[in-house]
Amino acid sequence: MSEVNPLEQRQGKDKSEEELLEILFNPESTAIVGASRTPGKFGYNIVQNLINLGFKGKIFPINPKAEEILGLTCYPTVRSIPSSVDVVIMAVPSPLVPAAMEECLHKGVRAVVIISSGFNDAGDWGRPLQKRVMELARQGNIRIVGPNTTGLLNPYSGFTSTFVPLERVRKGNVAFIAQTGMFAGMMLEWIISSQEFGLSTVAGLGNKCDLADHDLLPYFVKDPQTKVIMIHMEGVQDGPKFLRAAREATRHKPIIALKTARSEEGKKAALSHTGSLSGSDDLMDGVLRQAGVIRVNDLEELVDYAKIFSYQPLPKGPNTGIISPSGGAGVMAADACRRFGLKLANLNPKSIKEIKSLMPEWANPGHPLDIEPLGETQGIEGAVQISLDVVLRDESVDSCLVVLGTIFQPEKGVKALLEIRKKFPTKPLALCVIGHKDQAEILFQTLEREQLPVYPSPDRAMRALSALYRYSHYISQVRGV
Amino acid sequence: MSEVNPLEQRQGKDKSEEELLEILFNPESTAIVGASRTPGKFGYNIVQNLINLGFKGKIFPINPKAEEILGLTCYPTVRSIPSSVDVVIMAVPSPLVPAAMEECLHKGVRAVVIISSGFNDAGDWGRPLQKRVMELARQGNIRIVGPNTTGLLNPYSGFTSTFVPLERVRKGNVAFIAQTGMFAGMMLEWIISSQEFGLSTVAGLGNKCDLADHDLLPYFVKDPQTKVIMIHMEGVQDGPKFLRAAREATRHKPIIALKTARSEEGKKAALSHTGSLSGSDDLMDGVLRQAGVIRVNDLEELVDYAKIFSYQPLPKGPNTGIISPSGGAGVMAADACRRFGLKLANLNPKSIKEIKSLMPEWANPGHPLDIEPLGETQGIEGAVQISLDVVLRDESVDSCLVVLGTIFQPEKGVKALLEIRKKFPTKPLALCVIGHKDQAEILFQTLEREQLPVYPSPDRAMRALSALYRYSHYISQVRGV
Repeated sequence: MSEVNPLEQRQGKDKSEEELLEILFNPESTAIVGASRTPGKFGYNIVQNLINLGFKGKIFPINPKAEEILGLTCYPTVRSIPSSVDVVIMAVPSPLVPAAMEECLHKGVRAVVIISSGFNDAGDWGRPLQKRVMELARQGNIRIVGPNTTGLLNPYSGFTSTFVPLERVRKGNVAFIAQTGMFAGMMLEWIISSQEFGLSTVAGLGNKCDLADHDLLPYFVKDPQTKVIMIHMEGVQDGPKFLRAAREATRHKPIIALKTARSEEGKKAALSHTGSLSGSDDLMDGVLRQAGVIRVNDLEELVDYAKIFSYQPLPKGPNTGIISPSGGAGVMAADACRRFGLKLANLNPKSIKEIKSLMPEWANPGHPLDIEPLGETQGIEGAVQISLDVVLRDESVDSCLVVLGTIFQPEKGVKALLEIRKKFPTKPLALCVIGHKDQAEILFQTLEREQLPVYPSPDRAMRALSALYRYSHYISQVRGV
Repeated sequence: MSEVNPLEQRQGKDKSEEELLEILFNPESTAIVGASRTPGKFGYNIVQNLINLGFKGKIFPINPKAEEILGLTCYPTVRSIPSSVDVVIMAVPSPLVPAAMEECLHKGVRAVVIISSGFNDAGDWGRPLQKRVMELARQGNIRIVGPNTTGLLNPYSGFTSTFVPLERVRKGNVAFIAQTGMFAGMMLEWIISSQEFGLSTVAGLGNKCDLADHDLLPYFVKDPQTKVIMIHMEGVQDGPKFLRAAREATRHKPIIALKTARSEEGKKAALSHTGSLSGSDDLMDGVLRQAGVIRVNDLEELVDYAKIFSYQPLPKGPNTGIISPSGGAGVMAADACRRFGLKLANLNPKSIKEIKSLMPEWANPGHPLDIEPLGETQGIEGAVQISLDVVLRDESVDSCLVVLGTIFQPEKGVKALLEIRKKFPTKPLALCVIGHKDQAEILFQTLEREQLPVYPSPDRAMRALSALYRYSHYISQVRGV
């Protein structure tokens, strides 16, 4: 048994990797090659974003033609910066990147984020450029994020290489690893502007010429800010490494993955887009499942799951309660419960009896619980409160879906909802709001700010609850082994 | 061959049915039993909605305790109304409905909409009431919508029995048949407040003690305002009749159906909710497919399809073009194209060459068409315009999906988009907008008002295009026979 223990070896590697990633996400200084004075240009937006996000480290804009940009002193080259630099961001056309890399090499820079596209993503034209960049990186022991990406964003340190103008980024517990630049930008903008959950870190990996998903996973597992990891990936650089890293990570934190380039058409497109090679999708499906990764089909599903994992505890079992002021929505929720592999909870007859006693004589409640009749005697807010209390108290219930119409008034009903949630902190909740757009938006914001996930249909709410349950089931099995 | 031709018989029946439905959707007068002076009560909202929607017919509020409601003279009973009444709306507790039905019988009313719940939906308690109401209806040859529903809404005539307060209802070409009251209300509010497509008619059928989906379909086929029929149903009252009516209707207009109560749990819930009996869901799936009905899984899918059918022509074939400023979204769209049974169009090399000639040297466009490089030379709006023109002109393309980020400025780009659409009026388009919420909302509204359907993910846009294609394929087959 004279072999080196592969686990120790990996842990050894993890240690320096961890330092490196610590530097990447929390640098003390950064330089922007291609910084610009022209608002709207990528090289301007990056500097502006660093200022907006309150980045505490030093910022060195690099531009041989400018004296200052946004009040910051400019330098003609990386080498001419009078102090050391942790991370260099490159936002110049790809043919200019190798020269800038040489500068970094001489300067002793540890890590570079290459925003620019026009490398392996540009086929035969760009491949030699990416090869040259990697040679220089190896020479100088420089780690690279990208190329062809928006790069990094850490709302806690304020560090970012993102060129999409950012207004505000809510700090939170969801880490997001994305493959593609433009896409990470568009999705990021969507998430930041429309969602209430916050981000712990964003890493756009682009062509992944060096740093890949499996390098980041151990960092996010240890990162105290991160509770959930969401991934958008086209290609996996190293299947076995990814499987090992993912399997280890999912023992601690859930990974939700949108792995695209599934079809032949998508694979071909990914190859020309990020130079990603994708193998058999069935194989990948198996690998992800084996590793306990929750695979999703599209953008909305990714965010639907991220937020429920961010906000809610894991359920102990599959038994789901359904409360709805609309019988029709209740029927849909019951269908969805079955469709997504959950079980409609077998409510204790006492629970039903308790609720029936408060309803008009004619009402004959069952499960799903149609609370319209209860609303007639208690008001809709009271009906939700009473029924949720009874349902969550019921020992047969592991989690609960509540449908709300927009006649539910947040100022009358949300406080009571939160108090009940506090009484049963181990049972996850999902809400579905259907009705008037403006009121739905207010309900969405009010509830989500209190960590109650809101969905626009019973199906999407139930699907999210089912993802929680699947993960809960998975870890109880792997931890049991 | 002495049998009566069943088709003639049906057509005969259709004729009087048609008159009846004409009266129901366009009555010259209506009475509201249970009209109320108290804002917020159903009996108040219904009168208010009739006024708000500009209903041109006579409105008779019925309330023995009030002299006038919202400026309209009140009557104590239906019988006391001094002129004839086409449609009576009932919004009183279910035990009071039979007496009101007797009044209608004596008055010679043709049709009644029963809003009230507490009939078969209330189990043993309510069943005798529904039975009694039906007896009276048969005696007086009165047709009934409901009970347990929001009933009718016709934006063209302004007639409605809806108790959900309505601000505005856009006139359009989508008819909506819903089963359940609250649900139709919640969905209707959602559609009216958030969607840009308009409605031709809404019919909430509730417990369907009399009028059912199959009665309405021939009316909507003939209705010149209706182009698309969407249905939410829990139970089918008469399977063979529905199949026959649906099969005939889909020869002329698409039907999109959300048939719920699929699972055992859902069926049980539907039974206690609208008294609906549902048979095997597999059987139903076959029936719907046979009838050319497009079945959907949830609310969002229903509306996603309704609007593309409302706005766009049918494609000639499955070959789909994809234009995206984000390679990542292009990959997703290509995956979705395959997943939803469409084909990525095999673009003419000339088309690719034409676009490449306008891109920077390094770019190497393929299909899906990543137009980010074209944006660098033409601006993103120019890039969309040029590429869409080339792609739609390409004979290999039957329909096209365009992804937009929110850097696309509507004031710079929409006009050109519309001009290109005009050049190729037979090729359907779907758009996907991803990015900043506020700008996405503006783009959504601007484009949808011009009848360009917008979706929040490439998957949902592609799924909608695939529904168009499936229907196009279906009718080309049945018409060919």
